[in-house]
Amino acid sequence: MGNIWGRTFRITTWGESHGPSLGVVIDGCPPGIAISPELIQRELDRRRPGQSALTSPRSEKDKVHIRSGLLNNLSTGMPITIEIFNEDADSSAYEEIKDRWRPGHADYTYEAKYGIRDYRGSGRASGRETVARVAAGAIAKIILNRFDIDIYAFTRSIGDIHIRNVVREEIENNAVRCPDPEAAKAMIDLIGRIRNEHDSIGGVVELRISGLPPGLGDPVFDKFDAVMAAAIMGLGAVKGVEIGDGFAVASKRGSENNDEFIIEHDRIATRTNHSGGVLGGITNGQEFILRAAVKPPASIGREQKTLNNAGEEVAITVEGRHDPTIVPRIVPIVEAMAALVTVDFLLYQRVIEGFR
Amino acid sequence: MGNIWGRTFRITTWGESHGPSLGVVIDGCPPGIAISPELIQRELDRRRPGQSALTSPRSEKDKVHIRSGLLNNLSTGMPITIEIFNEDADSSAYEEIKDRWRPGHADYTYEAKYGIRDYRGSGRASGRETVARVAAGAIAKIILNRFDIDIYAFTRSIGDIHIRNVVREEIENNAVRCPDPEAAKAMIDLIGRIRNEHDSIGGVVELRISGLPPGLGDPVFDKFDAVMAAAIMGLGAVKGVEIGDGFAVASKRGSENNDEFIIEHDRIATRTNHSGGVLGGITNGQEFILRAAVKPPASIGREQKTLNNAGEEVAITVEGRHDPTIVPRIVPIVEAMAALVTVDFLLYQRVIEGFR
Amino acid sequence: MGNIWGRTFRITTWGESHGPSLGVVIDGCPPGIAISPELIQRELDRRRPGQSALTSPRSEKDKVHIRSGLLNNLSTGMPITIEIFNEDADSSAYEEIKDRWRPGHADYTYEAKYGIRDYRGSGRASGRETVARVAAGAIAKIILNRFDIDIYAFTRSIGDIHIRNVVREEIENNAVRCPDPEAAKAMIDLIGRIRNEHDSIGGVVELRISGLPPGLGDPVFDKFDAVMAAAIMGLGAVKGVEIGDGFAVASKRGSENNDEFIIEHDRIATRTNHSGGVLGGITNGQEFILRAAVKPPASIGREQKTLNNAGEEVAITVEGRHDPTIVPRIVPIVEAMAALVTVDFLLYQRVIEGFR
Amino acid sequence: MGNIWGRTFRITTWGESHGPSLGVVIDGCPPGIAISPELIQRELDRRRPGQSALTSPRSEKDKVHIRSGLLNNLSTGMPITIEIFNEDADSSAYEEIKDRWRPGHADYTYEAKYGIRDYRGSGRASGRETVARVAAGAIAKIILNRFDIDIYAFTRSIGDIHIRNVVREEIENNAVRCPDPEAAKAMIDLIGRIRNEHDSIGGVVELRISGLPPGLGDPVFDKFDAVMAAAIMGLGAVKGVEIGDGFAVASKRGSENNDEFIIEHDRIATRTNHSGGVLGGITNGQEFILRAAVKPPASIGREQKTLNNAGEEVAITVEGRHDPTIVPRIVPIVEAMAALVTVDFLLYQRVIEGFR
Repeated sequence: MGNIWGRTFRITTWGESHGPSLGVVIDGCPPGIAISPELIQRELDRRRPGQSALTSPRSEKDKVHIRSGLLNNLSTGMPITIEIFNEDADSSAYEEIKDRWRPGHADYTYEAKYGIRDYRGSGRASGRETVARVAAGAIAKIILNRFDIDIYAFTRSIGDIHIRNVVREEIENNAVRCPDPEAAKAMIDLIGRIRNEHDSIGGVVELRISGLPPGLGDPVFDKFDAVMAAAIMGLGAVKGVEIGDGFAVASKRGSENNDEFIIEHDRIATRTNHSGGVLGGITNGQEFILRAAVKPPASIGREQKTLNNAGEEVAITVEGRHDPTIVPRIVPIVEAMAALVTVDFLLYQRVIEGFR
Repeated sequence: MGNIWGRTFRITTWGESHGPSLGVVIDGCPPGIAISPELIQRELDRRRPGQSALTSPRSEKDKVHIRSGLLNNLSTGMPITIEIFNEDADSSAYEEIKDRWRPGHADYTYEAKYGIRDYRGSGRASGRETVARVAAGAIAKIILNRFDIDIYAFTRSIGDIHIRNVVREEIENNAVRCPDPEAAKAMIDLIGRIRNEHDSIGGVVELRISGLPPGLGDPVFDKFDAVMAAAIMGLGAVKGVEIGDGFAVASKRGSENNDEFIIEHDRIATRTNHSGGVLGGITNGQEFILRAAVKPPASIGREQKTLNNAGEEVAITVEGRHDPTIVPRIVPIVEAMAALVTVDFLLYQRVIEGFR
Repeated sequence: MGNIWGRTFRITTWGESHGPSLGVVIDGCPPGIAISPELIQRELDRRRPGQSALTSPRSEKDKVHIRSGLLNNLSTGMPITIEIFNEDADSSAYEEIKDRWRPGHADYTYEAKYGIRDYRGSGRASGRETVARVAAGAIAKIILNRFDIDIYAFTRSIGDIHIRNVVREEIENNAVRCPDPEAAKAMIDLIGRIRNEHDSIGGVVELRISGLPPGLGDPVFDKFDAVMAAAIMGLGAVKGVEIGDGFAVASKRGSENNDEFIIEHDRIATRTNHSGGVLGGITNGQEFILRAAVKPPASIGREQKTLNNAGEEVAITVEGRHDPTIVPRIVPIVEAMAALVTVDFLLYQRVIEGFR
Repeated sequence: MGNIWGRTFRITTWGESHGPSLGVVIDGCPPGIAISPELIQRELDRRRPGQSALTSPRSEKDKVHIRSGLLNNLSTGMPITIEIFNEDADSSAYEEIKDRWRPGHADYTYEAKYGIRDYRGSGRASGRETVARVAAGAIAKIILNRFDIDIYAFTRSIGDIHIRNVVREEIENNAVRCPDPEAAKAMIDLIGRIRNEHDSIGGVVELRISGLPPGLGDPVFDKFDAVMAAAIMGLGAVKGVEIGDGFAVASKRGSENNDEFIIEHDRIATRTNHSGGVLGGITNGQEFILRAAVKPPASIGREQKTLNNAGEEVAITVEGRHDPTIVPRIVPIVEAMAALVTVDFLLYQRVIEGFR
C-alpha cells in the first residue's frame, strides 16, 4: 500500500533504483489533451542524475516510453502509462553494506517493516523513485497550462547562503536552480567545498503557483494546504513545510496577519498575502506559496558508526554515486507534486461548478 | 467531499458551528475494545470553549452521545457514531456580517467555491468542527493505550515567549497547556494584554509520540510523516509543520544530521534523534516529534477594511465570542489527529505482520 | 470497514436494529440543491415496517432528523446528516436466542468474524440498516430529478406468481408493489397463506431507469453495471442480479443479441434493448433494466435445528416481528441504491465533460 | 478513473488491444511471498488467444515481464508490476469501421463518454484488457495457496447444452473447459457449427471456492458477495451473476432455503448450502458458489445494420479475428477476479483478527 496518490487524477507508481524499470499509471487524465512526449522528457531531464557537476554521476538517459492511453498523441481517457528503464544501475557498491543500516537511510525501517529489503541502490527508498512522479507531474503541468496556472520552484537557501531576491528567469541558468545569480555562485562554491569534505548540505526550496482560481480544496480533511503538505513532506528529504508566512505567524498578531480584501485589476484580491493563497483550506486566487526544508543527503563518504542486522556495532562508509546536496534536483520534483495536487483539485471542482 | 479521513480506521465527520449537531462515524474500529464514554468526554472537555478565562465564553457542555457500535461498552466492529449537540449557538452576531468577508476567514473562499455559505458562526469552517475529531481521537487513544503508545502535545511558544524546559506533568496544570510553569505565567499575562487590545496572537505547539513500534508508515505516498503533516496542516489555524529538527536541517551537514544506530536497553535505537523518529517515511521506534505553527485567530475586535459580496469596500468589526489565541485549545486536537493517524497505520501494519 | 459507499457522492451509514439511532452522512452532495425533508420522509415511509398487513408489525415512525449540511433547506456542499431514532425496539425476544445461530441469518458469521455480535434484533445485520440507505437515496433522487432521470422498481414475482404486464401507475396501489393488479391480488393471497403456515417466500424485483444520458460508467473496474450489481447484491436478501436479458443471453446467439443502432426521435437509440442500456460498462441512453432475486426471509416461526455457540445441537424457534416476504419493502431500497449509484457516476462525468 | 481495484490488495491496470503493452501494478502484496514467473505465465497461457481452434487466431505469446517488487523472486512489499507486450496487433481491419458503431460493442458509448475512442481492436474495451487481470490474479492465487484456499471455474453450459455432472479433473482436458466430457464434445460441435454460420453463442460459467475461512467480507457495503458480484459483472461479456441457489430462491420458501447448522468433521458446517457460502455478506466456511451468464460475442461475421458517427444508417461487417464463444476463455479470468477479491478480504481480515 501507499503507492497510489490522488482522488480524481490518480497515479500509481512502481520501481526500484536498480530494478528493470520505473513507471507510473495515471488513472483519470481527461480525454482530448494533447500530450507531447517531448514535454515529459524535458521535465525528466531536469531531475535526472548527471545533469551537472553537482549531481550524482550515475548516467541515466531516463528516456520516456508511453505505453497506453494515447491515440495520435491525444489522451483518450484511458490510463496513461509511462515507463523509464534503469540503464546504469551498478549494485556492486551495495553488496558490502547489505547487512548494515546506513545512518539517516531507510535501511533499518524497511527491514523492520517488511522483514526484507531491496538493498540495491536503496531499492524503492531511493530518490530514483521520483522519476515516476516527475513523469506524471509533466502531464499534470500540460493540463494546468490550459488553465493558465503557472507553477515554479527554486532554491531559496543552501546551508547558510540565502537568496536576496527572486529573478525567475535566472532559475534555470545555474546548476543550483537559484533565482539570485550572486547567491547561486556562493552556493555552488559551498557545495563544492562540502563535496570535497565528503559531506553533504541541506537547504530550502520555495514553491509558487499563480493563476489559481479561487475555490480549490475540499474541507475539512482534503484542504488544499493539507494535501499539498502531504505531497511535499512525502518527498524523502523534506523535514518541514510551511505555507505563506509559515512559522513566522507564531509570533504575530491577528491585526498584522489578516489579509484585507481589496479589488485589484477588477478582481477580488488581498492587500497582503500572509496566508499564502489559502483560507480555510480553499484557494483564494492569490499566489500559493510554500517552503520546504530539505535535509542534507544521508549518504556521505565518511566513516560512520552503525549496527549491522545482527545488532553488532560496525563502521560503515557509504560508497556509490551520490549528491552532495539534493536541493537543486528536488526543485522539479516539488513542482511535479504541486502540479499533481492542483490538477486533482481542479478536476474535482468541475463536479461542484456544474451545480453553481 | 473531504469529510472522510483514513484508510483502515476511517472517520466521517459532520456538523456546523450553529447547526443542530456535530458528530463522527468511525468505520473500522476493531471489535472487542472497551470504550468508556467518560474517556471520550474527558477529551472533549479539554477542547471545549469556556474551559478557562483564555477561551471563548460560548458555553457548550459538549456532552457525548454514542449512537451505535457498542454492546455493553465493547466495540462490535460496527461503525461507532458519536454525536454532540450545539446548545449555546447564537447566530445574531453574524446576521450583520453575512454579506461581508471577514479578513483571514474562509467566508470568501467558501462562497467562491460553493456559491453559498453558512455564515452562522462560520458554519463548518469554524473551529467547532474539531469537536468531532477529538471524539474520534479519544477512541483512537484508547486503542493506542493497549499498545503502550503514548501521545501528548503542549504549547511551545505564544508570541515571543518560548518555553525553557518540558515538565510533562505541568502541561495540564495551567490554562495555556505549557510544560514550563514560568513561561506559562508569562504567556497568560501576554494573552490577557492582547485580549484587552482586541487583538490575537499565534504560537507553536509540539507533539510527541513515544512507544511507537518500528515499521509504521507506507511508502511512497502514505509515509508516516507525510500523512501526519496533512493531518496537522489540515487544522484551520496551522501554517507550518516540521518534524524532528525540521527547518533547522536546511543549514546542517549530513555528518551532523545523521542519527547513528546503537543498542540501548537491549533495543535498536539511535544515539541522536534529529529525524524525529521517521526514516524513509517509516517509524524507527524513536520518539516522533512534530511542531506546528499556529496563526493568531482571525477574529479580532478591531475595525478592519474588507469587501462585501457586492465587491464594495466596507468596514467590519467581528463581534461574537472568540479566543485571543487558539494554541492551548489546539493541543488536544493535535493529539487527536496524531492518534487517528497512528491507529490507522498500526491497524494496516497487522496485514503485513501476518506475513513476516 | 465496509460502511462507506461511493466515490464522488459518498455515504457513510451507521446504526443497529435496537441501538439508539441509525443514520447516514452524505459527503459530496453538490451545493445549491433544494432538499425537502418531506421528500425524504416519503421514501422512508415506503420502506418502514407496519405500513401494511404484509409487513412486520414493529411500529417505527422513522421520523427524519437533518443534522447538518443545509441552510434554509438548500445544500451548502457540506456533509448532510440524516438521523432516525429507534423507538419501538424490543430486545426481549432475542435474549433467548443470543447464544444460538439462527439458520439463514448472519449470527454465526458475525460471531466468526468479529468474535462478538449484537444479538438484539440482529444488530447491524438487520434489514433495519437500510433505513439509512433509503434516506440517502432520497437525496440522490432529488438530484436525479433535476436531470430528468427517472427510477422505479416493482415486484415481478412472488413465489411462482409472475406479472403479465407492467402498468406503472398500479405499483403503489397495492401492498406488494406489483404493476399488475391481478397478479398483485394473487400474490397477496399467497403471502397470507405462507404467513399462516409460519413460513416465508421469495420473489423477483425489477428496476428500471430511464432518461440516463449516454456516458455514465467508468471502465474497466467501475463499470455502470458492475457497480450497480454490487449495490443490489449488497442488499441482505438478494442472491442474484441480472441486467437486460440477463441469464437468457447464455443460450442466445450474437445475431439475436446484438442491438442495432438506429435514429429514433432524432436521437441515437437501439432497435432492441437486450443489453439493458449498458455497452462496455457505459450507459448508452436506453432504459437500464435490472432484476434481482430476493430470497425468502430466514426468520420463520417454525422450529428449526441448529447449533448454539458451544457447538451443541439445539432447536430454535425465531420469535419476534418479521415479514413473510421482503419483496415489497425491498422495492424502495433497490431504488435508493440505484439512485445513489447513478448520482455518483453522473457527478464524476462532470469532470470528463468539462474537457470534451 | 475506474482502473484501480481493491482496498488492501490494490491493482491498477493499463493497456489497449493494439497499444504497445498492457500491464498491472499490484500495490499491497505482502512481503516474503515466493513469486514464480512460471505460475503467472501458466495462467496467462490459459487465457491467451490462439490456444485452441475455438479461439481467436491472433497470435500472442503474452510473455510475462516483471518490472518491480521482487528480490530473488521474493516479494518485498513494494509494488509488483507485470507487463505484457502486444506483438500481433493488426489494426488494418479496424480502419474501415473506425467511424461506425458495431452493434453490441462499446464503440458508441466510449465515443459518447470521452468524445474520442481508440478504435484499433476496440482499444481498452477489448477483452485483451483482461490479460492484466489474469496476471494479477495469478499472484493472488499464489497467496491463497498458502492458506489452502482453492479456486476453480468451469463451463456449465454453451447455448442449450448443459453439463450433467462435474468431474474437476476433466476441466482442462478439453477446449471448452467443461467438467463433463460428454457435454464438452457436444459443446465443441455446437461452437464449430456456430462459427461456420458466422455467428456466436453464449453460456454459463460456474465458480467455486473451497477452503475459505469463515469471516471474510465487510458489511454493509463491502460484503463478500457484493464485491464478488461487481468483480464478475465487471467482465465485459457477463450479464448476470447469481450466488448459491441464485434466481431459484425467488420461488422458494424459508423453510426450504435455510441451511441448518451442523457439526461435520469436528467443524461448524451447514447441512445444505443454498446460500452458496455467504450469510449476511460474510463467508461461513462452506463452498462459495457463483454462476455468471456470458453473452455471445458481439463480433460476428455477418452484415448488420448500424449508424456511423455522422448518424447515418450504414451496413457493417465485422472483420478481424474473433472468438465464436468467449466462455472457455473467461474461465481463467473469472478465477483471477475471484482470487483478487478473496485475497483482498483475507488481508483485511488480519486487521480484525489481531484484536479477537
